[in-house]
Amino acid sequence: MQITAIRHVTVPIESEMANAFISFASMDVSVLAIITDQVLDGEPVIGYGFNSNGRYAQPGILDHRIVPRLLAAAPDSLIGPESGHLDPELIWRAAMINEKPGGHGDRAVAVGILDMAAWDLAAKLAGRPLHHQLAERAAAGLGTPLERVWVYAAGGYYYPDRGIPALLDELSGYLDLGYRTVKLKIGGATLADDLRRIEAVLAMLPAGADLAVDANGRFDAATAIDYAVALRELPLRWYEEPVDPLDFRALAEVAEAYPGPLATGENLLSRQEAVNLVRYGGLRPDRDVLQMDSALSYGFTEYDRTLAALADHGWSKERCVPHGGHQFNLAIAAACGLGGAESYPGIFEPFGGFADGDQVVDGYVTLPDVPGIGLEAKASLAPILAGLRDGTR
Amino acid sequence: MQITAIRHVTVPIESEMANAFISFASMDVSVLAIITDQVLDGEPVIGYGFNSNGRYAQPGILDHRIVPRLLAAAPDSLIGPESGHLDPELIWRAAMINEKPGGHGDRAVAVGILDMAAWDLAAKLAGRPLHHQLAERAAAGLGTPLERVWVYAAGGYYYPDRGIPALLDELSGYLDLGYRTVKLKIGGATLADDLRRIEAVLAMLPAGADLAVDANGRFDAATAIDYAVALRELPLRWYEEPVDPLDFRALAEVAEAYPGPLATGENLLSRQEAVNLVRYGGLRPDRDVLQMDSALSYGFTEYDRTLAALADHGWSKERCVPHGGHQFNLAIAAACGLGGAESYPGIFEPFGGFADGDQVVDGYVTLPDVPGIGLEAKASLAPILAGLRDGTR
Repeated sequence: MQITAIRHVTVPIESEMANAFISFASMDVSVLAIITDQVLDGEPVIGYGFNSNGRYAQPGILDHRIVPRLLAAAPDSLIGPESGHLDPELIWRAAMINEKPGGHGDRAVAVGILDMAAWDLAAKLAGRPLHHQLAERAAAGLGTPLERVWVYAAGGYYYPDRGIPALLDELSGYLDLGYRTVKLKIGGATLADDLRRIEAVLAMLPAGADLAVDANGRFDAATAIDYAVALRELPLRWYEEPVDPLDFRALAEVAEAYPGPLATGENLLSRQEAVNLVRYGGLRPDRDVLQMDSALSYGFTEYDRTLAALADHGWSKERCVPHGGHQFNLAIAAACGLGGAESYPGIFEPFGGFADGDQVVDGYVTLPDVPGIGLEAKASLAPILAGLRDGTR
Repeated sequence: MQITAIRHVTVPIESEMANAFISFASMDVSVLAIITDQVLDGEPVIGYGFNSNGRYAQPGILDHRIVPRLLAAAPDSLIGPESGHLDPELIWRAAMINEKPGGHGDRAVAVGILDMAAWDLAAKLAGRPLHHQLAERAAAGLGTPLERVWVYAAGGYYYPDRGIPALLDELSGYLDLGYRTVKLKIGGATLADDLRRIEAVLAMLPAGADLAVDANGRFDAATAIDYAVALRELPLRWYEEPVDPLDFRALAEVAEAYPGPLATGENLLSRQEAVNLVRYGGLRPDRDVLQMDSALSYGFTEYDRTLAALADHGWSKERCVPHGGHQFNLAIAAACGLGGAESYPGIFEPFGGFADGDQVVDGYVTLPDVPGIGLEAKASLAPILAGLRDGTR
């Protein structure tokens, strides 16, 4: 068994929307295929991966460092001694050879893309849905995966020329889709304007539904605390990324001012940073939410180690709700018993969203019973995956 | 005044050597030219930049994100209102638009390359040596730069089939070149073997010369402390990067066990990480050494802000001795009164090393009196710079 080719393509997911920090007008992702010499049902067995939105495609690091290392590795060195199959951990190690410690940025995204494809491949080679494969095999696996995963609808971005009525239409649409928690961007307007947006949404929400708000790391400590003082009077699900993701001291100051749940972590791209967050960020293991995202931070192979390190620091997996909005993190959440996963209904398509048949019901979604991550159970991805398989894009 | 082209090229600096973490057999750097419509003495005014060794060339991020943003920026938006010239700070901001906070890795290297070229260009447009330009203009500038900068010779890498006699030959050669401090890699062998290497060097050193040792982030806390206990009996200049660059708790434990100077920071690629180091790493402002490197961490534009943040935390610029071994950090050290700069005599050429006429005398080196960084005063760089200028490589 060996890899015969690794192909990747850069796909735009541009949009007119913005959060408090960036515009998404030029955003894109890399989609990668690990193609093997194995054939099942007359088709080559291929693992697919892509990065989450927000940190751009990685054609350069993939072409310059990651893919050449994989193709240069002795084929047998990538075969797991127990499974006899191409092994995600061994693929991960081959990808990271001769990389220095620290500096966890775009490299973490590139390896995340590869690792997602390696796990999709491993589950397909085993003929199992990934959430079952990980539940049994990962250190953090439950043995038997969750049957359904809590998901929330992240939206409420800033768009040019769109006011509160359009915002309420958008978020109530998510409730119609079956979500019970919706999320709104803040920090791209004044506190007074943001409070008007938040209060309008709260007034619209039916009983049993709730709202989280997300500042995308925009605020300095003083502004974050001003917001905290205003927001703590409101029944919010959480207050997300109030300050720069690495300013743990400012985060601890916000935690002093904000008794409700805080959430952060999507911009921590390594286990080391996640550990520093829980060591220094003043977060509270009984309420706060950790959002590290495998597809941006060295993949599940590293995330499994991160979950173990978090447990060493007193943090339950149930406090983890990854950023990303795609099927890879959903499978990880089901396999490991995470608190849930993010979802972006209708945006970042076709990468956002879950399998076609799996509807959100009362805030929870089920997973497809197909080998691998389940990307083939999402029709809108098929043209991209077929193009990679056939080498036509 | 405007940019007419930005070109870059990937140049190998491969070598048979290794530190405790990586081999340098496939190492390379990006060299970038910002070409303008200005002409001085019949030649177009061009700024050149490159990254330091250790974290690879960045053709992908430069082509995919950084260079297109610069070329898409309105030319007037890059002109400093006071200087009337292309402005490094405005170039930096244009490069970083729509980049999320956190995730400081390869992006920091790519922007470092660009920023070095932007400062080389700014100094050439002003007709000044960069160390004079920065001394006057930077927040951390001295007004009048240092006339000479302390440098030390970083070598003592692990090479296949090279024993202690060859190591002593190498390091005594650095003393012959005028260096008074030499550095040796540790952590790629057993503690007993490393102690034999260290003791052999110490026995060879003449009066007034000293030795630093560098573990390149290889050790876990327990091993780092084992080394600390052995090393603290020896008269070392410093003990460098004992643990993972982001494991601040382990570093603080090492500091408890090691009363001599510690050094670290070359793998912290952002201001935020540098601040976390001095907040959480247990380092001592009266002795320890901070090695953050502009050419790997968003350039001098960001390093100037880092120096201010370090001062806010009680750290003098004299405690800073950047990694990198090239003229950009040497100019920054002279302009801001840093404690010194690293040097790699004879390796990482032609990027390592200083201007041709500037000899190291008694551990100090002078700087060339030419406009810009002084890259044109180093003949071995000329073919690469000419190729970029002419678009022939």
